[in-house]
Amino acid sequence: MSDDSVVRPRPEAAVTLRPASGVRIEGGFWGERQRVNRDVTIPLGGERIRESGTFANLEAAARGAGGEHRGKVFADSDVYKWLEAVAWERGRADGGELARSYQEAVALVAAAQRPDGYLHTHTQLTGREPYSDLASSHELYCAGHLMQAAVAGSRALGDGTLLRVATRFADHLVKDLPAAALDGHPQIETALAELYRETGARPYLDLAARMVTDRGRESLPLKGHHGPGIRQDRVPLREATTVEGHAVRAMYLAAGATDVAVETADGDLLAALARQWRDMVATKTYLTGGLGSVWYGEQFGGPHELTPETAYCETCAAVGSVQWSWRMLLATGEPAFADLMERTLFNAVLPGISLGGDRFFYVNALRVRADANPDDRRAAARGRQDWYGTACCPPNVMRLLSSLGHYLATRDAEGVQVHLYAPGTIRTGDVLLEVETDYPWDGRVELVVRETPDRPWTLALRIPAWADGAGVETRFGAGGRPVASGADGRPVEAGGYHRVRRTWRPGDRVTLDLAVRPRLTVAVPRLDVARGQVAVERGPLVYCLEQADHPGVIVDDLCLATDPGLRDGTPMTGLPAEVVPVTARGRAHVHRADDAGFPYRAAGAPREPEHEGPVGLTFVPYYTWANRGTGPMTIWAPMH
Amino acid sequence: MSDDSVVRPRPEAAVTLRPASGVRIEGGFWGERQRVNRDVTIPLGGERIRESGTFANLEAAARGAGGEHRGKVFADSDVYKWLEAVAWERGRADGGELARSYQEAVALVAAAQRPDGYLHTHTQLTGREPYSDLASSHELYCAGHLMQAAVAGSRALGDGTLLRVATRFADHLVKDLPAAALDGHPQIETALAELYRETGARPYLDLAARMVTDRGRESLPLKGHHGPGIRQDRVPLREATTVEGHAVRAMYLAAGATDVAVETADGDLLAALARQWRDMVATKTYLTGGLGSVWYGEQFGGPHELTPETAYCETCAAVGSVQWSWRMLLATGEPAFADLMERTLFNAVLPGISLGGDRFFYVNALRVRADANPDDRRAAARGRQDWYGTACCPPNVMRLLSSLGHYLATRDAEGVQVHLYAPGTIRTGDVLLEVETDYPWDGRVELVVRETPDRPWTLALRIPAWADGAGVETRFGAGGRPVASGADGRPVEAGGYHRVRRTWRPGDRVTLDLAVRPRLTVAVPRLDVARGQVAVERGPLVYCLEQADHPGVIVDDLCLATDPGLRDGTPMTGLPAEVVPVTARGRAHVHRADDAGFPYRAAGAPREPEHEGPVGLTFVPYYTWANRGTGPMTIWAPMH
Repeated sequence: MSDDSVVRPRPEAAVTLRPASGVRIEGGFWGERQRVNRDVTIPLGGERIRESGTFANLEAAARGAGGEHRGKVFADSDVYKWLEAVAWERGRADGGELARSYQEAVALVAAAQRPDGYLHTHTQLTGREPYSDLASSHELYCAGHLMQAAVAGSRALGDGTLLRVATRFADHLVKDLPAAALDGHPQIETALAELYRETGARPYLDLAARMVTDRGRESLPLKGHHGPGIRQDRVPLREATTVEGHAVRAMYLAAGATDVAVETADGDLLAALARQWRDMVATKTYLTGGLGSVWYGEQFGGPHELTPETAYCETCAAVGSVQWSWRMLLATGEPAFADLMERTLFNAVLPGISLGGDRFFYVNALRVRADANPDDRRAAARGRQDWYGTACCPPNVMRLLSSLGHYLATRDAEGVQVHLYAPGTIRTGDVLLEVETDYPWDGRVELVVRETPDRPWTLALRIPAWADGAGVETRFGAGGRPVASGADGRPVEAGGYHRVRRTWRPGDRVTLDLAVRPRLTVAVPRLDVARGQVAVERGPLVYCLEQADHPGVIVDDLCLATDPGLRDGTPMTGLPAEVVPVTARGRAHVHRADDAGFPYRAAGAPREPEHEGPVGLTFVPYYTWANRGTGPMTIWAPMH
Repeated sequence: MSDDSVVRPRPEAAVTLRPASGVRIEGGFWGERQRVNRDVTIPLGGERIRESGTFANLEAAARGAGGEHRGKVFADSDVYKWLEAVAWERGRADGGELARSYQEAVALVAAAQRPDGYLHTHTQLTGREPYSDLASSHELYCAGHLMQAAVAGSRALGDGTLLRVATRFADHLVKDLPAAALDGHPQIETALAELYRETGARPYLDLAARMVTDRGRESLPLKGHHGPGIRQDRVPLREATTVEGHAVRAMYLAAGATDVAVETADGDLLAALARQWRDMVATKTYLTGGLGSVWYGEQFGGPHELTPETAYCETCAAVGSVQWSWRMLLATGEPAFADLMERTLFNAVLPGISLGGDRFFYVNALRVRADANPDDRRAAARGRQDWYGTACCPPNVMRLLSSLGHYLATRDAEGVQVHLYAPGTIRTGDVLLEVETDYPWDGRVELVVRETPDRPWTLALRIPAWADGAGVETRFGAGGRPVASGADGRPVEAGGYHRVRRTWRPGDRVTLDLAVRPRLTVAVPRLDVARGQVAVERGPLVYCLEQADHPGVIVDDLCLATDPGLRDGTPMTGLPAEVVPVTARGRAHVHRADDAGFPYRAAGAPREPEHEGPVGLTFVPYYTWANRGTGPMTIWAPMH
């Protein structure tokens, strides 16, 4: 078990919470996703990256040869993200093929590095001048992913090889990067901060802080029809009131800026980031947690511009959102950050990968229509793909899943906070908790104290904002009498932490019941594309209607009955047995002959019957969609 | 007065209707638009085109010099479209500056033409090989616009100079264009057909027919992430069931294919086009008649993908739609084509130009939100612009407005058909009609027979599909007793032609009342982005809510009362006095404190009050929006 975390603030950092020192997920929902990630996705990713020519680029750079560079300018980052995933995986269980392929790849990366510390195969192979086109070259973006892989290798494995490569590059940057230089694609900021955390070398943090400060002053050249905001270069972060531009870049920058804010105790910067995060959640976040509604430039739209069909919701943006929210949670201890993290993990990261772990969505639409044009290259209608020419998303999911345990729990001076629920063990200091749960399918979470100091401390359990009616029952000692929440004066309230403080003994047991049951969700009136419609959620999962479950009708025509009678369904053919569908009473709009004419008509004109007879609706978790073929799908449906 | 039309099928063409030989618009709604076009827009367009360097390109080509080409590869077409507009204008009233600048420009075009007939300044100045990059070069697109300008010059002015340039180019194409060559941007098909109509040279029609047949076989190279459909090269037109890809290209190609179909009496091709047109209307047309919902590639979205905010609705696509529908109307005589033409003219072409005639929308959104990001370069939120780097739209509106009279009326063996209503005179053969009306502000249209043969003929008046309750009253002779429709056994039905047949006498008078009054419009259920919402229309005009008329509230929060009491309003400050606004009872959603959090909540949770007190709503015609500053605007609003 690794005893170190994917984000590790320095002792002097201005944070409210610190990561638990060790969390191990054992089975359950996330355990299965980690198993598939290790057994299928990571090996497959290594193959795909090899086929794409990225290893060949490193080999050519190692030979010092110029020549053809294969793939995109940022292809190196695919290797680094994959290496990061492998490092965390080896930290969980080492050996075999995983160790061998890691060491080979690390050796190749080390060999490709120039004597002066610089490393970017596209620049090296094409003979360009380093740092001469930072707006587009992704040199620092790749450097950042290298540093993150190196930090993972160091923390998970104590591996100094990759860390030396990364620090040599970082030292080169500190020395030779032109003043005021910024990469068009943020990412290095958070990486430099983490490298500082790992090495204690303050110049790395200073460089990250300098980049955060210099950004937003229109110093990068403009691109296409876009303004400077596409690259977060319109407004300095300390002045910005919202997130804008390319969603992945915005998330990476915000995560890095949060690192800088806590390590430099910059309260103004942290407050600005909190303001931007709140505006993002209030006006630019899909129900799934997905981010980015504009295809052109892969960017955020305007406030409440959240069209389901044209949702971009790049898988990488969801990964970046989790990274940012986690850093904000550590900084502030506020539960809203954990709420968004959980929503995003289940409903915006996971849809990016098939249940089998071998196919990927880059773009995650919230609606796909019937009769999609076969020429329409927008990804959702075409289903998940084996790999992508721009392969940023798959290894991003790999590294997040392999390090997921690090995001579950934290500690502070008062005790231990559990933010996400998965079976396994949580170690922090001299506390060891065991967690048993079938969450999210079932809302019951058992936490057993296995080791504890002989002094009072507080166990804080996150109660998600949706979990009205949650209950906590505590049983002290093996034969202890259960004490229900409320009985001790602390009612369980959704959208916060339920805290139980006492001098715990081994064997003490806390049972949380999150009251997981299907519910209907609506949007605020300004969110016009969801007007007159509802969504189904169950626990942390957003559900959808998929064509596979509705033979004989078209998903586009389905609506819920006014009294839909939502119910847990029985296991479904083609989906894992543990997946709980939700059934409801519904109807199908009649697609009438006159609907084949002009699709607008006078309001109030009689048009009976409007509906076919009753139709049984089956909702499945959105992350499971497009695993049984790809067809029409919707998260929002009308109710009438 | 010109006695010839913008589209003139050959005598042997398989058409149902033929254009009236002469229509003159005198005052009224469209007369004012024509006046502004002539007095402001066309002179300004000449200036802008000169400033953009397009005349300089022609001058350089005329000198035979190589060198820099200014502007886009298709810049020549701006001159040609402007020349076409000037030619039609001179046909309406000649002389002065208009004649002088026309002749100068024509001389310049003639001088720039190569001795072998070829003409494309970008190719000539850059020394590229002609026809070596037809997928992108727009050589034939420009050639087509040259031909259309030449046809206009010949028909309106009897000018042979430009016609000689065009026929020399066309002859060159017939001789030297590589077999199976297609332009990435259709346009030349309809131009070649018209040049054939004007000259009788059959090879021009044959070349157009060949291009229509060869398209849709994936012969053009792919571009970016797009499939072949972006350029209408995925499915042959005879097999296609819908329109797809770049909307302007789709409209131009369909118009040209319709010309080919009627001139070659190809009933299968015409039936295929009718099928595509019907599918376009049923699934891919905004309420305004606007076309294209996807910014990326300026293209059609999937069926019912008609998001108001991201509407592309390029002004050129609306012009192309009018051109196609007019050709389909001539071919078939079916009123639906005229209905869409009228809707598109008022609500998709006109919004592309300011009331003053000097500012332009390239993209026409149906909704603009509050708090639009100032970095968002999407056009609507930024208001109309003085001109565009890609300046296809402004001269397209100019040529359509200057030739608008040609689209009003037709004839067949039975008599005369009036499709669009404007004051002025309609001449066809030995019939002369005088029209008086304040349409669209008022629904009353007076038609007086001024000249007529001494034999029975049928006057057919289009009753738009929205005009329930329309009436027709006929008064034979100066002191004749009025005969109401219905009295003669022919009830007036919306969505068709009301026909009155008799031996007419000068002075006979027909009064049509189209019952113009405000009404509410809804969309079919599949059009999900309009669910739970209504639009206001009045006669042929689509209305919108604009921020300028709702101080103290945000348009995004407005909704109609369940009983909105729509009423004609009084003239408004800042808009021409004749513009009739529509008032309604409404409310504003409370934008509550908790709306600033996560914008999704449990359905049914009490949240009173949902609304502020009553708000008086003012709807203005959509084409007038953004003439009093640019702010939030919407066509669809919720009702509850």
